[in-house]
Formats: sequence, structure tokens, C-alpha cells
Amino acid sequence: MVPEKISSLQNPRIKELVRLRDRRPRDEAGVFLVEGYREIRRALEKQVPLRELYFAPDWFLGENESALIEQARAAGAQLFELTKDAFAKVAYRERPDGLLAVAPQWKRALDDLSLPAIPFLLVVEAIEKPGNLGTILRSADAAGCNAVIVCDPVTDLFNPNVVRASTGVLFSVPCVVGESAGVLAWLRDKKIRTVATTPAAKALYSNADLRGPLAIVMGSEQYGLSEFWLKNADLPVRIPMAGQADSLNVAMATIITLFEAVRQRGK
Amino acid sequence: MVPEKISSLQNPRIKELVRLRDRRPRDEAGVFLVEGYREIRRALEKQVPLRELYFAPDWFLGENESALIEQARAAGAQLFELTKDAFAKVAYRERPDGLLAVAPQWKRALDDLSLPAIPFLLVVEAIEKPGNLGTILRSADAAGCNAVIVCDPVTDLFNPNVVRASTGVLFSVPCVVGESAGVLAWLRDKKIRTVATTPAAKALYSNADLRGPLAIVMGSEQYGLSEFWLKNADLPVRIPMAGQADSLNVAMATIITLFEAVRQRGK
Repeated sequence: MVPEKISSLQNPRIKELVRLRDRRPRDEAGVFLVEGYREIRRALEKQVPLRELYFAPDWFLGENESALIEQARAAGAQLFELTKDAFAKVAYRERPDGLLAVAPQWKRALDDLSLPAIPFLLVVEAIEKPGNLGTILRSADAAGCNAVIVCDPVTDLFNPNVVRASTGVLFSVPCVVGESAGVLAWLRDKKIRTVATTPAAKALYSNADLRGPLAIVMGSEQYGLSEFWLKNADLPVRIPMAGQADSLNVAMATIITLFEAVRQRGK
Repeated sequence: MVPEKISSLQNPRIKELVRLRDRRPRDEAGVFLVEGYREIRRALEKQVPLRELYFAPDWFLGENESALIEQARAAGAQLFELTKDAFAKVAYRERPDGLLAVAPQWKRALDDLSLPAIPFLLVVEAIEKPGNLGTILRSADAAGCNAVIVCDPVTDLFNPNVVRASTGVLFSVPCVVGESAGVLAWLRDKKIRTVATTPAAKALYSNADLRGPLAIVMGSEQYGLSEFWLKNADLPVRIPMAGQADSLNVAMATIITLFEAVRQRGK
């Protein structure tokens, strides 16, 4: 089947792709954008049923695009070939690579998670910057977290910049969105201990026991953890800071805490 | 003294500020750009002798700009007041805050460093992305490194995006630029042990002894450590990876290794 060709910037599909950068139209349509070779490859590897794949050979950077397009087609995606200008309009990356897919959003509930006997979870609260949320997902993937629970999200998981900053890890790390009270109740029910990072804590994170069923809880960029988590977490811990007070952002604090847990749990 | 006012986009100073985004004119003039309230404040705190301060009240975000401008003037900076449009032309940030300074570059040699009895250093090789180098400087600051040694730089320390991503930490963490062979000779002469992170290493970073005089060595984004450091470092170590092979970028690997050293050295 020959892909439909699109050259007009006024084509309704082009306009729809631009609209999908915003959360409301994205949520209403129940889909999101996946841009870039690596991200689309990871979506396909994880059997994400891509609905549409837009490609523009004028922007291709490598040699493997045709194989990826064929793979997407075989998996059921509708194909569209765009001119250079048309793709420039729909790309949100600074340096597009000529590949953009539309994927269905999904909803996973806490009880959908299949956890091992000794779960290792990351809970993040009200993260604001998509780049931070994406980096945090990468860190959770590298650390082997069983899931990331996103509480009271300010940025949504399907923001194009989350997909990009996560380098597609969004498709492999199980993510659940929830509100804090429900998440805490679920963690308690599962007897998963909560360790919350806050500069005000007395205990050093590296002196805390981070083995056993564990959820590491991180607060937002600007406000840190909410009163709710500060009051209810089993153990508040802090990361020692030698320099400027703001030298560690939330993504950096998260990866430090996650890998200390990995170290302890590996023993 | 009343600041000179600039409204013309053709003003030679405006053109010069735009030129200073590029490395060659920056190096030829021996100066660099410092944009933003936080970064300029940190430069002033560290007695960096700002030569010029350009400000545009139309872009101010806070209330403290006047005090900062007065502080810069008192420290010897020449002041220029810009119209909104003129400042938009010289700003390189997406969201300018109406403050941009020109500071002299400096050169520090290895022997200029004043090190404690048990030094803790970070060596980075050929980092390509200014954002990564800036984040790495923040990590080194947070971890209390005595200095960062930048080997065979691809991106220079005075790139505007390094200044920005470092949030001004560039002014507080001593940074030295050198070539790898000279840096290794100097480290050996000082009896500072080198621990190099590479996925090919057998030893886990957290099983290595990271106490005593120590330099942690990190390679570039794309190529990792060069043969030179792989061959000559005292101890190669690796970070365990649970997920996608590329989930840890160089900035993330750096902060994990630095904070494991902090943990061990704090005992």
C-alpha cells in the first residue's frame, strides 16, 4: 500500500498534529505524539499500537528509517509521507529526524501493576518540568524500579517533552498516575515502606535502610514534598549538600537516592 | 552616573554581544556572557570583575534587580540600559530576565589549584554538550569536589549554555582546562588515584574504595573514555544498569559516582 502524501500545510492532519502538542486536545483525542527514531523504535519494541506514522525522507539522518517504517506498517500504523516543509511544521524537536508517530494513551491503575515480592518503586509528586519527568523515568529504568507512580501531576506523562526526555523509556517503565492520598493508602496496604527526601530531614539517605519493599518519594521542583508526604512518609531523609543550596535539582536528587537503594539492595 | 541608553539594534555593542555567543570572538576578546539574575549574583559574590552590565527593566521578573545593578556598578561594571527590543536581540535564553553581563575569561593552571591534604577531584574528558558540562559542574559543587579538570574540551567552559546550565556554579567550583597526558602526569605526581567509569569494567563502582586522594574520570557522551584514560586510569569501574543501555547519560553517571564517593568519604 502506497502511503498517502501530504504537502499542504493546511492539510487537516498537519493541523491536528500541531494541536496534539497541547494537553487538552491530546487528552480529548486519547492519543499522543512520539517523535524520533529511537522513541518510535522503543514504542514498537513494546508493542505500542501506533495509529499513524508520518515520515519525511528529506529529514532522515540514518539508513534504518525504511525498516522502521515497514515495521510500523506491519504493526498496523497508517503511513503518511510528508514534504520537508510539511514535516518542519509538525516536528517539535529542534533537529527533526523525519519520523513522528501518533500512539494511543493508556491508563494503568495501581492494582494493574504486577509487583515482585520485594517491590522497588519511585513516587514523584507534582513534577512541573517535562524534561525533569523524562530524566526521572530514565533514572528509574536504569535503577530497575518496578514502577513509577506520578502523584498529582502538573505535567502529564504524554507531554511530547516527557516522551523525548525519557528517550522512549516511557514505554518500558510501568507508570501509574494517581492522587497522593490514594497512593499512600495503597502503599500501606501493600506494606511498602516510604522514604521521602527533604532537606529538612535529620537522617542521611545513605544511613537509612533502603532494602525491603520500598517506595522512594520525591517532591516538586519548586516546593519540594507537600505537607501530606512529609507528615505521612515512614522515613524522611536528606542528601548532604556541600555547595550552593540549589545545586541539586529534583532529577539529580532522585538518581542519587535511587542508586543508593540499588547499592544496598544488591548486597 | 546615568547608564548609557541603547535602543538601536544596529548599535555596535548589541552586535558585539550577539557575536560573543560564538567561541572564536569570545576567545579573541577574552570575555564571555553571563545572563540572568542568579548567575550574575553568583559572579558578583565571587568577585568576578564584570566589565559591562546590560539591563532592560521591561524584562525584569522580580524586585531585586536594582540592588544587583547597583552592586555591579559599585564593583566597576559599566552600565547600559536597553529597550525591550534591544534586549530581546542580545538575550540567548528563551525567557530573558533583562540582565546580561560581560565578564573576563580566566585561565587557571593545575598548579594554581590549592588542594587539601586529601583531594577529591572530577576529571571530564571531551564533553560535547554545554548542558551536560553545566550539570556536571553543579554535581561537582553539590558533592564538594575541590576542582573540576576539563580535558581536551569540545565545548568550552565559557559557552553561554555552560554558564546557564551550571546556574553560575562555574564561578564557585575551581575549573582547570588541560590535555589528558599532562593532567594524568600531574595527578600521578600528586599521588591522586584515578577511578574511571566505563561499562566494560569488571568492578562495581560501589565496591571500589573511593576514599583517599581521588580523581573520578568521566568520558564523553558519544565515545565514553578514550583509550588513553582506559589504559592509564588506576581503577576502571562500572555502574550497574537494569534498563535500556543508554538510560544513564554522562551527567547522570557522574553524579551517581560522585555521591558514592561522598558517602564513603563521609564515614
